[in-house]
Amino acid sequence: MQSKMKALVKDKAGPGAAIIDMEIPKLGPHDVLVKVISTAICGTDLHIYRWDKWAASRIKPPLVMGHEMSGTIVKTGSAVKNWHDGDYVTLECHQTCGYCYQCRTGQGHICRDYSILGVDFDGCFAEYVRVPETNLWAIDQQIPPEVACLQDPVGNAVLATASTDIAGKTVMVTGCGAIGLFAVGVARVLGAAKIYAVDLIDYRLNIAEQMGSTKTINPLRMNPVEEVLLDTGGDGVDVVVEMSGNEQCLHYGLKAVKNGGRVALLGLPEEKISLNLTNDVIFKGVTLAGITGREIFATWYKTAALLKNNLDIRHVITHQMKMEQFADAFRIIQSGQSGKIILYP
Amino acid sequence: MQSKMKALVKDKAGPGAAIIDMEIPKLGPHDVLVKVISTAICGTDLHIYRWDKWAASRIKPPLVMGHEMSGTIVKTGSAVKNWHDGDYVTLECHQTCGYCYQCRTGQGHICRDYSILGVDFDGCFAEYVRVPETNLWAIDQQIPPEVACLQDPVGNAVLATASTDIAGKTVMVTGCGAIGLFAVGVARVLGAAKIYAVDLIDYRLNIAEQMGSTKTINPLRMNPVEEVLLDTGGDGVDVVVEMSGNEQCLHYGLKAVKNGGRVALLGLPEEKISLNLTNDVIFKGVTLAGITGREIFATWYKTAALLKNNLDIRHVITHQMKMEQFADAFRIIQSGQSGKIILYP
Amino acid sequence: MQSKMKALVKDKAGPGAAIIDMEIPKLGPHDVLVKVISTAICGTDLHIYRWDKWAASRIKPPLVMGHEMSGTIVKTGSAVKNWHDGDYVTLECHQTCGYCYQCRTGQGHICRDYSILGVDFDGCFAEYVRVPETNLWAIDQQIPPEVACLQDPVGNAVLATASTDIAGKTVMVTGCGAIGLFAVGVARVLGAAKIYAVDLIDYRLNIAEQMGSTKTINPLRMNPVEEVLLDTGGDGVDVVVEMSGNEQCLHYGLKAVKNGGRVALLGLPEEKISLNLTNDVIFKGVTLAGITGREIFATWYKTAALLKNNLDIRHVITHQMKMEQFADAFRIIQSGQSGKIILYP
Amino acid sequence: MQSKMKALVKDKAGPGAAIIDMEIPKLGPHDVLVKVISTAICGTDLHIYRWDKWAASRIKPPLVMGHEMSGTIVKTGSAVKNWHDGDYVTLECHQTCGYCYQCRTGQGHICRDYSILGVDFDGCFAEYVRVPETNLWAIDQQIPPEVACLQDPVGNAVLATASTDIAGKTVMVTGCGAIGLFAVGVARVLGAAKIYAVDLIDYRLNIAEQMGSTKTINPLRMNPVEEVLLDTGGDGVDVVVEMSGNEQCLHYGLKAVKNGGRVALLGLPEEKISLNLTNDVIFKGVTLAGITGREIFATWYKTAALLKNNLDIRHVITHQMKMEQFADAFRIIQSGQSGKIILYP
Repeated sequence: MQSKMKALVKDKAGPGAAIIDMEIPKLGPHDVLVKVISTAICGTDLHIYRWDKWAASRIKPPLVMGHEMSGTIVKTGSAVKNWHDGDYVTLECHQTCGYCYQCRTGQGHICRDYSILGVDFDGCFAEYVRVPETNLWAIDQQIPPEVACLQDPVGNAVLATASTDIAGKTVMVTGCGAIGLFAVGVARVLGAAKIYAVDLIDYRLNIAEQMGSTKTINPLRMNPVEEVLLDTGGDGVDVVVEMSGNEQCLHYGLKAVKNGGRVALLGLPEEKISLNLTNDVIFKGVTLAGITGREIFATWYKTAALLKNNLDIRHVITHQMKMEQFADAFRIIQSGQSGKIILYP
Repeated sequence: MQSKMKALVKDKAGPGAAIIDMEIPKLGPHDVLVKVISTAICGTDLHIYRWDKWAASRIKPPLVMGHEMSGTIVKTGSAVKNWHDGDYVTLECHQTCGYCYQCRTGQGHICRDYSILGVDFDGCFAEYVRVPETNLWAIDQQIPPEVACLQDPVGNAVLATASTDIAGKTVMVTGCGAIGLFAVGVARVLGAAKIYAVDLIDYRLNIAEQMGSTKTINPLRMNPVEEVLLDTGGDGVDVVVEMSGNEQCLHYGLKAVKNGGRVALLGLPEEKISLNLTNDVIFKGVTLAGITGREIFATWYKTAALLKNNLDIRHVITHQMKMEQFADAFRIIQSGQSGKIILYP
Repeated sequence: MQSKMKALVKDKAGPGAAIIDMEIPKLGPHDVLVKVISTAICGTDLHIYRWDKWAASRIKPPLVMGHEMSGTIVKTGSAVKNWHDGDYVTLECHQTCGYCYQCRTGQGHICRDYSILGVDFDGCFAEYVRVPETNLWAIDQQIPPEVACLQDPVGNAVLATASTDIAGKTVMVTGCGAIGLFAVGVARVLGAAKIYAVDLIDYRLNIAEQMGSTKTINPLRMNPVEEVLLDTGGDGVDVVVEMSGNEQCLHYGLKAVKNGGRVALLGLPEEKISLNLTNDVIFKGVTLAGITGREIFATWYKTAALLKNNLDIRHVITHQMKMEQFADAFRIIQSGQSGKIILYP
Repeated sequence: MQSKMKALVKDKAGPGAAIIDMEIPKLGPHDVLVKVISTAICGTDLHIYRWDKWAASRIKPPLVMGHEMSGTIVKTGSAVKNWHDGDYVTLECHQTCGYCYQCRTGQGHICRDYSILGVDFDGCFAEYVRVPETNLWAIDQQIPPEVACLQDPVGNAVLATASTDIAGKTVMVTGCGAIGLFAVGVARVLGAAKIYAVDLIDYRLNIAEQMGSTKTINPLRMNPVEEVLLDTGGDGVDVVVEMSGNEQCLHYGLKAVKNGGRVALLGLPEEKISLNLTNDVIFKGVTLAGITGREIFATWYKTAALLKNNLDIRHVITHQMKMEQFADAFRIIQSGQSGKIILYP
């Protein structure tokens, strides 16, 4: 095997990134080396690429970017027993501590002290990536690489959407970026009665429709709350899945949700948000559920089963490019005219 | 309005039934009179028709049979405010006491002291039926009468199947009578990964396949437990929905269910059943959930929404007949070569 | 029986109230007349008494105030079957519509269209009160009247506190008004490991200690977040019960709650509250649950059982007075130097 | 450190056991060595001691017996980072595979492929025991050794009892061996309204009373079902915790449980049990929950918190002996005149 590889690296503290040659990672006894087949760009990668305030405070260059991928194991550490060369795998990017309250009670995804592949240590936008064995997830051979590398963000959508009863219920998804679009699809295959997809960009709403929304709402043209209340006989929706991080969207959700309903919050507001808790949450008996990551590995089992049997996410994959074209890819993402972009190393 | 109507009546303590002319029911202040459009035959009706041990102990002839129907309100009692002439309705057949612990905690379907329309007081196999207003359920105009009259048994299937997480899970339905067939359809629209349908009668298994089962298993030809374990990599299924009341089927379910899995019991065994609780339930951490009726009206909301938006049950409706042909209908049911039979008054 | 009674009435649109003679209420067929034994003053009564913005927008004088009481049935409407003269009762003050989605799915406490006794129609600060039969709750004879009239606010505390797993968990109660003090007691009898009671008024913290808090925290003297984190090894608390409606208290709760924890919101903020949802809710996987009223009657069963068997709330009853002393009572409440005040008609 | 230790060993395939000198265990990189302070005898140990059918089929002598203990770490394997010499610890005896569906979804206690310390590999009835680091549980210094070694069986009781809502509910514990007695105590500190303790041996019922039962029932003197129904106004109990494995006890539980109630099954029947599922489970909407082991480590957190703050189990510790007196200890257990017996090495 060669000793060098190409990798897309955040090489300095500032905007941009570069493809550079570097050493293929060394393995500890519980690590494996994966030859990367496909990767996908996440919003987190864009933060790092643009070098915003969050990125500047968290990232220590040089760092190999990326945490969504599929690949094949080519080498295993000395203590690895359950994984083998040739295994087709993807990864959970949260490396959990294993010893905190959350980790020891099946809630590792909200571990008190985790680090993230592609954020806190080298990621997968490269020919090879080192992965701790406990972070691996085996992929069914029927799942093609461009889908297989998306189980991490689809898992976000599954945890946000499928952790409450959806069958026969009405669902509003605010924010139709990739995870919002996946959420529309998840709600569809779980038997939602109505799915209202809300976004300011028609390109995204068109994909939402392909993913199974029953009505798309662009707030530039109509009021989401009025539409939803009209369509539900004044009851409002059972479930809101907030994927935008946008204050106005959250207000739409809180006004549109039914008494006793549930609002899952996954989109990350950049600023504080001001809420009328008395009227919108307390008197309505509404629950707001903060959602982050994916349950390790309960969500993975469900996500993999849905992708294999029910859920077709290919409408969301709008672009597939070579890793060298990363600058084009990030430009397209920022235009808002994309779903998910796959990068091949 | 005429004063007499035709009704299918259990007229004496013994097998059979007769169509007779009788007075149209009088209304109390909280009752409505419904002109019946469609009805359906349930297993309970067959018990009463055949006059088995249970029927002989419970039924007091003369009694108008039947509890599954759709119709139109033609008259309302003096205190009825929320229902009106012309409303398209069906009914919950359990008349609950309203005052017991179960009734006052949202569990009216397991009321300590309920009576059943068509069992304990006059039913709906007639031109008209008297219904207490709190038992009414409004039907969406898009639902045709032959489907609308089936919300009671579809509701059984919904309560048994949808009261646990089904999305991406593996499900085994043992017993493909009408409610078992509905359960297959419910599991399908809720996003089950695999649905194993088990029955001794191929006619029913063919319908199960039309309803969305991924594999049909006739124990006369193969061992359900071996099939399911093989297909799930030895894990077993997440959920068993037991609809047969058959001892052997329950054993299949208990052997095929995964550690930590759930077995919903709705089929009614006629005899005691002998269980290896230590190995099949306790060491496996399995839950057995007794299911009866439908939640009033949580299950109705979900059932109605699924029927309107996702769930097509028409494959299960194998026969549609005039009420006068009741003898033929009961003979067909006993042959096992039917799904659900609709009777029109 | 006399035809007139004394009642404490909001007699005009403005601050204050008056005791006046008025007709004893007439009964509809489903009503009962209750001779009032004891009543208690709620924060809602204070709003009405002071005639704040909310009261001015909602209340239509003249109105008999009050909704917390115990009494004895002295007359029943013609259609009432399950209640009898001499029954020792209290009442659920929310009169629900009975026909909305919430009412028909066991969530009547968040009915879309309810009215409140003592707010929207005449209340119980009187010698007699008319109560719809479905709002009655039978009291065990062992419960004395000064306790029996408090099942409504204790029920608030029970719904807020006991709707999640408390046993062996750490709980922080922010705001030690009467309902907060009840919440401390509820957490205690449910087996909480640690109960942190937070309030600015030492008088209330002393009662919290009597109710079973393990540590009282006055933010004037120490930082609640630092105290709680120190005491829990940095993990934070499992459950926050927010009873103050105070913005600062909610921030304490969100900073002190554990990853994956739950914050029950019952205290009503008068203004909008600004939240850092990203760091305090989403990344922590925290759930905020809006709580209002009490489940009808699931919470009543639990509350009554706790009051009879485990939960002693007498420390919270700091004053017992004649109804004529209402002006003194309201003045004491506003001083902050009280728990719950009982008024006898 | 010495190289030899004394251990209580199942030395041959047949009844009995012997104390022998043996090598102190060697450690793998992820193991620790614990110097044993206290141990306790479990029903499993009695099966092994008596060499019944189960033991003969499972145990491969020679084997150091025992799996309940407390001790101090005296040595750690080369890869152990989170545990240190001097740590006061106990252990989870189930060594789980870490890779099956159950292990990867937070249900390791029902792992498809686990082995048990003291059953499948050497146990803790010895001066020293080797423990894999992932099986360790840190003990609070306030917990004395005779209590600390009981967290495993108390955990059984916690999982069986506390996994449903107990506060203000009525509970029936059938079978007052040690785990049943712990269950009585758990129900008490969780705020149960009534706790009915059922056993044939008055010695045990006396301890049940000390642990907080509100009524003890010896079926030799009265009918448990009649007593419970009478005492609950005919409703029956909310929760049954079946700890006996006895067929008659399970029937008591099923007849005494309320419609919609829950029956936790932990006692292990030696034979098949015949159930009237139709009347006792399905029509009543009852749930039977098989319970085994303890959640790893959710149950441990709860158990430890209850033992430290609320739950006093010392009434159940009826005997404390030197390990050399093991023959006496096993004889006392078989007499039925004991709670829990502590053995000191």
